[in-house]
Amino acid sequence: MGEGITTRLTKAFDLRWPVVCAPMGGAAGGALASAVSDAGGLGLIGGGYGDGDWIDAEFARVNAPVGCGMITWRLNAALLDRILAHAPRAVFLSFGDLAPFAPRIHAQNIPLIAQVQDMDAARAAMDAGAQVIVAQGTEAGGHGASRATMTLVPEVADMIAARSPETLLLAAGGIADGRGLAAAMMLGADGAVIGSRFWAAAEALVPGGLHAAALRATGDATLRTRVPDVARGIDWPKPFDIRVMRSDGTEGLHGAPEAMSDADRAAWRDAMAAGDARMATPIVGEAVGLIRDIRPAAQIVEEIGQTAAGLLDGGWSNAAHD
Amino acid sequence: MGEGITTRLTKAFDLRWPVVCAPMGGAAGGALASAVSDAGGLGLIGGGYGDGDWIDAEFARVNAPVGCGMITWRLNAALLDRILAHAPRAVFLSFGDLAPFAPRIHAQNIPLIAQVQDMDAARAAMDAGAQVIVAQGTEAGGHGASRATMTLVPEVADMIAARSPETLLLAAGGIADGRGLAAAMMLGADGAVIGSRFWAAAEALVPGGLHAAALRATGDATLRTRVPDVARGIDWPKPFDIRVMRSDGTEGLHGAPEAMSDADRAAWRDAMAAGDARMATPIVGEAVGLIRDIRPAAQIVEEIGQTAAGLLDGGWSNAAHD
Ligand SMILES: Cc1cc2nc3c(=O)[nH]c(=O)nc-3n(C[C@H](O)[C@H](O)[C@H](O)COP(=O)(O)O)c2cc1C
Ligand SMILES: Cc1cc2nc3c(=O)[nH]c(=O)nc-3n(C[C@H](O)[C@H](O)[C@H](O)COP(=O)(O)O)c2cc1C
Repeated sequence: MGEGITTRLTKAFDLRWPVVCAPMGGAAGGALASAVSDAGGLGLIGGGYGDGDWIDAEFARVNAPVGCGMITWRLNAALLDRILAHAPRAVFLSFGDLAPFAPRIHAQNIPLIAQVQDMDAARAAMDAGAQVIVAQGTEAGGHGASRATMTLVPEVADMIAARSPETLLLAAGGIADGRGLAAAMMLGADGAVIGSRFWAAAEALVPGGLHAAALRATGDATLRTRVPDVARGIDWPKPFDIRVMRSDGTEGLHGAPEAMSDADRAAWRDAMAAGDARMATPIVGEAVGLIRDIRPAAQIVEEIGQTAAGLLDGGWSNAAHD
Repeated sequence: MGEGITTRLTKAFDLRWPVVCAPMGGAAGGALASAVSDAGGLGLIGGGYGDGDWIDAEFARVNAPVGCGMITWRLNAALLDRILAHAPRAVFLSFGDLAPFAPRIHAQNIPLIAQVQDMDAARAAMDAGAQVIVAQGTEAGGHGASRATMTLVPEVADMIAARSPETLLLAAGGIADGRGLAAAMMLGADGAVIGSRFWAAAEALVPGGLHAAALRATGDATLRTRVPDVARGIDWPKPFDIRVMRSDGTEGLHGAPEAMSDADRAAWRDAMAAGDARMATPIVGEAVGLIRDIRPAAQIVEEIGQTAAGLLDGGWSNAAHD
């Protein structure tokens, strides 16, 4: 196996690399989560809005310890119990008040990973006893808010040091290669949650047309918008919106998504299902400009880990400056 | 002097630390620029919108090699010549088309530093022969655009490697301490342009009331807005807006800054001059949450440099994980 990177995260979860695959709703199924865990990272099934049957089916596909992520404001006690019944390696909660659910998770001795987007949410996650806090920056793919990874991570690190030093910290948002992982560790993180790069893994549940469009894009091609949520009729609370790739078909809609017609909504939904990137909006972050191929998740984990290990081991001077 | 950090930037400009003080319009005068250069970084006078008399006066105050920064879309040939007459250590251009000005700067053998906010601008800066490109993320204080530092820096690094490997790269936006500088180097930068942290230096031309308000703020306290530009009647081109601290007095204005009354505009301008942070909007970035004191610039340079050197030298494991 070789050496890997040792951090508080890799010790706590017995990992080779401090790499967590984000619980991307619908896109991160059992195959992706399992492949990441098998390669020495931590895989998470993307439970999203909470389709219990889908979650059960994806857990049935895994052959390595994986966790499960849920959108907190859509969670309820019955669904949480259904997930806990799978004895997940961790429960990952993001977007909303986790206090009602934390005690039940703690009672089962399952690690609670809480993703936060600002300092108030970081404090709330600490108060709820989350073992791991994920500081998510605005460059992230999917739902999120406005703070950037570069400042949110060290600021949360300082808050952890002052209030709850045993809490672990991960960075999320804009990390797609070993440079990003090494940068996250410099900022004070114990590892990284990586979404977009694994969205572009062979095992991700993503139509080929969307993968192909993402490979052509630069990081300038994304924006934060409400179009996908309005198209699906999902009433996301403030301050959250979703980062996706722009598309010709949606370009005029971002300014006033409420004005979408029924036809607009149907066109977006059909295009997403069909993988038609002219009208659909692939759910990826700014890191899409760093993604050059679709590969098996195990290769992605290994390359990110090895590159970061080289940089952390003094290789930064050679990599960037010779 | 001790060791310092060696990168392509420190070699090219004969620096001890790969730290450039941003040319903050009006706030970075000769005293601040000179102090940063004297401490082993590179100081830049913030020429801003181009008040030639002010620029001449600030150059008269310096006793170390410093450069000068200008807002490109407000620059003209006569003003550029007036600046070049000071034999600046570098000319720093940001926000607009630099092609009309680059040849004159090259002809005088003065290094051209070009700050960019997206991939098209990065390509244009390379084509214009800029010796140094600054990838500026949205978390930065002052004017800027939407890409974040975490992804823009490595993506521009890859473009440089493919198109123009001899071009140097700096990161700007959200870097206020040694963790941020070390992270920037991991992302592929040769150093960092730091604004907000030096705005909070003793030598910065900033009213005390604004400094005091910034020390109380977390990084959640800023936003990108057009209020200050509308208040001053400055017609900034797209895609630029300005990141500032929120204030009670401006909270209702961000949504529709065009609707500001003459009284609103006057109130904002008076408050900025007086340092009244209830109505004014201090010009700082998300990094304000990492700033805990007002100190002489030399101490800031030294602390950032020493911390980064320690992290790059393997200290990351101890700093974050023991
Ligand atoms: C396709 C996609 C779907 C996502 N779905 C979820 C989700 O259901 N729940 C969640 O907490 N985060 C979700 N995220 C956000 C991730 O948790 C993570 O913060 C983000 O992917 C990190 O930024 P990156 O995409 O730049 O790696 C999603 C991200 C992507 C790209
Ligand atoms: C008070 C202030 C004024 C600024 N004025 C200018 C300016 O006149 N020209 C310019 O190119 N950049 C200006 N900037 C942006 C900086 O060049 C730089 O990109 C930014 O400060 C980096 O982010 P940071 O503030 O998080 O360090 C300014 C920044 C601040 C904080």
